[in-house]
Amino acid sequence: MTGRNVIIENLQQQPIESHMVEFVERKGLGHPDYIADSLSEELSLELCREYSKRFGTILHHNVDKVLLVGGEARPVFGGGEVISPIYIVMSGRATTEVDSNGAKEKIPVGRIAVESAKRWLKSSIRNLDTESHVIVDHRIGDGSTALVCNYDNKKGNACANDTSFGVGYAPWDTLENLVFDAERFVNSDYLKKRIPEVGEDVKVMGLRTGKEIKLTIAAAMVSKNIPDMSHYLSVKADLKKAIEDKITSKCEMPVEVYLNNADIPENGIAYLTVTGTSAEMGDDGETGRGNRSNGLITPQRPMSLEAAAGKNPVSHVGKIYNVMAASIADRVAKIKGVNEAYVKIVSQIGRPIDDPHMADVQVVSEGGMPLTSNMKAEIGAIIESEFGSIDKVTELILAKKVTLY
Amino acid sequence: MTGRNVIIENLQQQPIESHMVEFVERKGLGHPDYIADSLSEELSLELCREYSKRFGTILHHNVDKVLLVGGEARPVFGGGEVISPIYIVMSGRATTEVDSNGAKEKIPVGRIAVESAKRWLKSSIRNLDTESHVIVDHRIGDGSTALVCNYDNKKGNACANDTSFGVGYAPWDTLENLVFDAERFVNSDYLKKRIPEVGEDVKVMGLRTGKEIKLTIAAAMVSKNIPDMSHYLSVKADLKKAIEDKITSKCEMPVEVYLNNADIPENGIAYLTVTGTSAEMGDDGETGRGNRSNGLITPQRPMSLEAAAGKNPVSHVGKIYNVMAASIADRVAKIKGVNEAYVKIVSQIGRPIDDPHMADVQVVSEGGMPLTSNMKAEIGAIIESEFGSIDKVTELILAKKVTLY
Amino acid sequence: MTGRNVIIENLQQQPIESHMVEFVERKGLGHPDYIADSLSEELSLELCREYSKRFGTILHHNVDKVLLVGGEARPVFGGGEVISPIYIVMSGRATTEVDSNGAKEKIPVGRIAVESAKRWLKSSIRNLDTESHVIVDHRIGDGSTALVCNYDNKKGNACANDTSFGVGYAPWDTLENLVFDAERFVNSDYLKKRIPEVGEDVKVMGLRTGKEIKLTIAAAMVSKNIPDMSHYLSVKADLKKAIEDKITSKCEMPVEVYLNNADIPENGIAYLTVTGTSAEMGDDGETGRGNRSNGLITPQRPMSLEAAAGKNPVSHVGKIYNVMAASIADRVAKIKGVNEAYVKIVSQIGRPIDDPHMADVQVVSEGGMPLTSNMKAEIGAIIESEFGSIDKVTELILAKKVTLY
Amino acid sequence: MTGRNVIIENLQQQPIESHMVEFVERKGLGHPDYIADSLSEELSLELCREYSKRFGTILHHNVDKVLLVGGEARPVFGGGEVISPIYIVMSGRATTEVDSNGAKEKIPVGRIAVESAKRWLKSSIRNLDTESHVIVDHRIGDGSTALVCNYDNKKGNACANDTSFGVGYAPWDTLENLVFDAERFVNSDYLKKRIPEVGEDVKVMGLRTGKEIKLTIAAAMVSKNIPDMSHYLSVKADLKKAIEDKITSKCEMPVEVYLNNADIPENGIAYLTVTGTSAEMGDDGETGRGNRSNGLITPQRPMSLEAAAGKNPVSHVGKIYNVMAASIADRVAKIKGVNEAYVKIVSQIGRPIDDPHMADVQVVSEGGMPLTSNMKAEIGAIIESEFGSIDKVTELILAKKVTLY
Repeated sequence: MTGRNVIIENLQQQPIESHMVEFVERKGLGHPDYIADSLSEELSLELCREYSKRFGTILHHNVDKVLLVGGEARPVFGGGEVISPIYIVMSGRATTEVDSNGAKEKIPVGRIAVESAKRWLKSSIRNLDTESHVIVDHRIGDGSTALVCNYDNKKGNACANDTSFGVGYAPWDTLENLVFDAERFVNSDYLKKRIPEVGEDVKVMGLRTGKEIKLTIAAAMVSKNIPDMSHYLSVKADLKKAIEDKITSKCEMPVEVYLNNADIPENGIAYLTVTGTSAEMGDDGETGRGNRSNGLITPQRPMSLEAAAGKNPVSHVGKIYNVMAASIADRVAKIKGVNEAYVKIVSQIGRPIDDPHMADVQVVSEGGMPLTSNMKAEIGAIIESEFGSIDKVTELILAKKVTLY
Repeated sequence: MTGRNVIIENLQQQPIESHMVEFVERKGLGHPDYIADSLSEELSLELCREYSKRFGTILHHNVDKVLLVGGEARPVFGGGEVISPIYIVMSGRATTEVDSNGAKEKIPVGRIAVESAKRWLKSSIRNLDTESHVIVDHRIGDGSTALVCNYDNKKGNACANDTSFGVGYAPWDTLENLVFDAERFVNSDYLKKRIPEVGEDVKVMGLRTGKEIKLTIAAAMVSKNIPDMSHYLSVKADLKKAIEDKITSKCEMPVEVYLNNADIPENGIAYLTVTGTSAEMGDDGETGRGNRSNGLITPQRPMSLEAAAGKNPVSHVGKIYNVMAASIADRVAKIKGVNEAYVKIVSQIGRPIDDPHMADVQVVSEGGMPLTSNMKAEIGAIIESEFGSIDKVTELILAKKVTLY
Repeated sequence: MTGRNVIIENLQQQPIESHMVEFVERKGLGHPDYIADSLSEELSLELCREYSKRFGTILHHNVDKVLLVGGEARPVFGGGEVISPIYIVMSGRATTEVDSNGAKEKIPVGRIAVESAKRWLKSSIRNLDTESHVIVDHRIGDGSTALVCNYDNKKGNACANDTSFGVGYAPWDTLENLVFDAERFVNSDYLKKRIPEVGEDVKVMGLRTGKEIKLTIAAAMVSKNIPDMSHYLSVKADLKKAIEDKITSKCEMPVEVYLNNADIPENGIAYLTVTGTSAEMGDDGETGRGNRSNGLITPQRPMSLEAAAGKNPVSHVGKIYNVMAASIADRVAKIKGVNEAYVKIVSQIGRPIDDPHMADVQVVSEGGMPLTSNMKAEIGAIIESEFGSIDKVTELILAKKVTLY
Repeated sequence: MTGRNVIIENLQQQPIESHMVEFVERKGLGHPDYIADSLSEELSLELCREYSKRFGTILHHNVDKVLLVGGEARPVFGGGEVISPIYIVMSGRATTEVDSNGAKEKIPVGRIAVESAKRWLKSSIRNLDTESHVIVDHRIGDGSTALVCNYDNKKGNACANDTSFGVGYAPWDTLENLVFDAERFVNSDYLKKRIPEVGEDVKVMGLRTGKEIKLTIAAAMVSKNIPDMSHYLSVKADLKKAIEDKITSKCEMPVEVYLNNADIPENGIAYLTVTGTSAEMGDDGETGRGNRSNGLITPQRPMSLEAAAGKNPVSHVGKIYNVMAASIADRVAKIKGVNEAYVKIVSQIGRPIDDPHMADVQVVSEGGMPLTSNMKAEIGAIIESEFGSIDKVTELILAKKVTLY
């Protein structure tokens, strides 16, 4: 091992799955918080592309503050309309001007903010008309000098932009996998082709008690595709059956599925939307308020409160270290004798990001056995390898190959 | 004549054309003020349609306050880009909720505001991308009770919403016709097909001194269609020639055309835009700040300061009386012996709009001759006929058959 | 006379006062359009001060686009409340950054916009709480390069920023004086001390028919100071009497005063406001939509549509030439034998502002007599003297010694 | 025990304090996220007061979405200025209109949003001028029908508004207490009186490795009170000494304090602000992005991602259950034989809030001993008592007697 500050510890604790009670939640594609996260991240990616194209390098930005203010809609069976558009304000910081060979070059940050948001919405929320159902505004300011200078001073690796940390764990347990898969399935092309009545706003809450799981799913339905309540009920039945067939039946524990549980058909109450997202009806959303960087909300697991979405993938520890911690945990958890791995990485402002203030690996070993020196060496090597190729994290993020929310 | 308060007077004054100096201005299609006017009026028309469709009647609205905040752009020969989008806020008042058979029905005023604006922009400013070059926001409030009640109380004709007035005159003189025609020509399909490099932001200023006219035209050019300065100069030459051939050569006075006079080709200064409107570069616009309701700015003629655009065409005197005054003047000016006609109509708040507080017709007669009783009778009949069919004004406005700005 | 392009012409026309019908309007201190004008101008003045303090010169700005979106209020006798604040967005262009000895200095344009607006509102609208009754936002962009360069290139006098014109006339007639004085009186300290129930939103419309004047005044009353309808009616009576005693009784024509004519006391309808301005209840306002630069709206007189408010007082012809034209007209009208003077001044973009494209003086002489060579010489000298000391106009504007709206 | 769904389990795991590494963070009073939380909560409290005053009951609202967009400032020793104000948009949902005895009554939600925000800022951030350093806007919509109906249907206790959960734990360990106390001390009246140079934006990050603690504190300094670098350094020394004397010296572990660690005095780099908060310089903030409902960020402890701030304290489980879980944990942890207690409470939409879907109590017992039936009975009684007096949570929140962020 090198001089990196690494602590490896053997944690004596029950695996999560032996707890009597466990909750896991995932906010899906069309959830207002998910939309906010996506717009932050899409903007960051687009800025990366633009900075790279113009200057051969990714300049400072941190656009992890998008606010979505819900609109007003009147969904009715077979139709409906948006009364008042959703209002989205893109905010955060980005480098808007660069001195390039003596001349100032302006970066079209404002236009990119609006453009990238519209593009994502258009391609992701099928029934949302980006011309009339949503207003995309922006209030993105200049990057502050202090932060920008990280880049100017850059030698080799970027420096951490803040004193912050990332956390990760592995492996996922049954409930975590189930909740994630359920949402991905409901928002899959496969499902949407078969049941186009289903919108994108899907929220999955899993509750395990002992060995039994209750999966509560709220899925917004698209009103214009549903002529009446009886059609609605049949769509619900179809969707439930599809989830059971394709997802829950493969789970090793018995799973009960509750779908749109607040419906009261006899009173005409159903989860209808015009656009497929509850954002149309007043549910607000903010970047960083939904899923953690692994795509889940897991109260019983270590979580970071940093929003990964929208932060620059070069120097922002709140993004990079969360991805790395999960990646390290993944690899550590595969070591023979390891049941669970928990990883924390702390930065210190101004320190190169490949030289963290501390990396902490907690291992829950099989049978609580002490860690062997071989295991420790393997863990050390994993950390070494991950930090040695920290640029890959940036690349993975740029290639959209990691889940961030 | 009926009991309407009509005053007919014989005005002793030189016709405008005998003044030594005369200015006339017209802001064209893509000018920021013209855009603001258009968005106000399009919204009003769309609201009229929506109210009529839902309730069989046009409800109160007054959306004559649109603000366009210019963006930032970097036009360059052969390309260029928008740096920061134009920001437009639709504002004013409209009826947003109606008690209809005991149930409240919400009118999608916000969505219509955004939708109608985008639609107009898309169809009018060819090189403006409504998804990324412009942000359309709205802050439209409820109609105030006092004004709304005009409609509830409506019996026969609507009541005036304000103490206000309209003015009109006829006929147009040489310079007025020339300025109007020049702008319409530059923004005609004919011209745009032949010289697609020409944008929509066209401003025409005419100055007559004695019998000579100088026509100063500023026409935004679209940068992506113009590879270099030499192409720019040839486009300018073509445009100038076209104007001379089709418009100014037909004028009875000698006309000198000045096109994009602030250009300094040797310094690379040309009137280039990415989108065809100077709104992209920081020129702001507001409803009611551009052309008067006849489509011109004519300092030497009576003008009203009311914005016709965006006002409801049923009870808003600032709109209806301006259109009527012009229409009356037109007809009066055709009476034998009449050289010029000036018409003013004053409302009184709460009074039916077909019963104005006063209608004043000033006639400049041929040779300053006194008005004959026949002439007066004809004028009276015209007024009678116009007020007797005041609903036609509303219809003409709804059919977009009158110029309003 | 010098080489300046001056045209002097003898106009054969009736004086305005011999027309049968004349309208004059003035929007007073608390009217939404007047507020917008004031906030534009106050911001311009504050920017002038700031630029001068920092750089010894006034830099480019043009902040003549303020939008006020009316709020919502519930005034009731003896109290009431603001439901939703007035929303004001300050917009336009200003120089936000200056290269000063190699270092960039930022000008706090955004803060000044908000600060100056709040300060004016606080000191002008007595019952408006600037912390809770109003939201002041800003969207002021950078000055565009093309315009800014006027200043860099400045030698001696600034260059005109646009092809534009100013108009002025003199003397004011009876109705014009009356309307102006009436508003000033209702908004005077004298009156407000005596009748504090009267708000600032005062609109005066004067209509002269033959030799009789009807003065229609709408004056917002402050609800918390008025316990009930009977108090309201007595306030109205007091105000009417004060106006008659102090203003209309001194008029040479008989004047009938109509005060808050839309009131229907028996139905409880009175012109009540919480704050003293109708902006609280949904009346929107925009810079440049109210009074012309002499403080009046006069359809029968030549008017410019330029907003004087908010434009920079150094190079913006839309401001300077309007002030100058009025000043020249004033002086010309005092020449013996002159009844009325009408002045127009045209700029040409890029031309020094003291060298106008043309100055046109129209004189209505006593008895229609031809102008003597002496009169012409006097007029020429006035123009010469005004243009020779054009900087004084800037100084007068900075010292707030000229009416601009 | 009653029929409530309670699960009590004995958790086999090391106490947190035996982990080798632990992080705890607290964002203090003037941190942008803390400001956003505070403005959300202050608005909720004010709405509660207003609804209670008018209707005798607290109506639906959920204003947990405030966005703060950082401004721009130029702090310099002995002075400095705000260049561009902080922009805050209050958003979320609230009941804006109530049918009360047949008449509609409007609630001044917009005004209250602006007013309560200004009031909090004025009283909390001493050097922030609410008239010029900040713009407070709002975009609060109506509560959606579905949620509002909870209130209409209310019988006895309110129903849960969502399927959600709260988590809590006790007791706090050494590091958690230290981090919390440190921030509270730096923002205490005591400290601010002695060292007024210290601003409100204080962020404390604690890192424990084994038995040693590093406390990294970032404290914004107020530039106008600090004439030069040497004064700055002495203020830092004084502040550090005060923290050591009053806080860290009382800690049972050795603590090293790092204060404003990014300073580079020799390069003139110091943590200066004009207003005492980094919000002035571009740090954005959002409700729910900072401290969890116990006032800390603790990655190694169960955390909920719900923002407690701004939610209504009557039916919003994301607020009430988080407070209750902490309260239950507190009481359970005091039971003899209990080392640590972890509590989770799950709601189900539509179910009365005093009848949770499940309450889960995990106990880490002394020495890992099994829970006795007495202990279980005590725990059951605590839960019973807490749910039996669930209204007290609402009262405590209304009285501002619980930490929420």
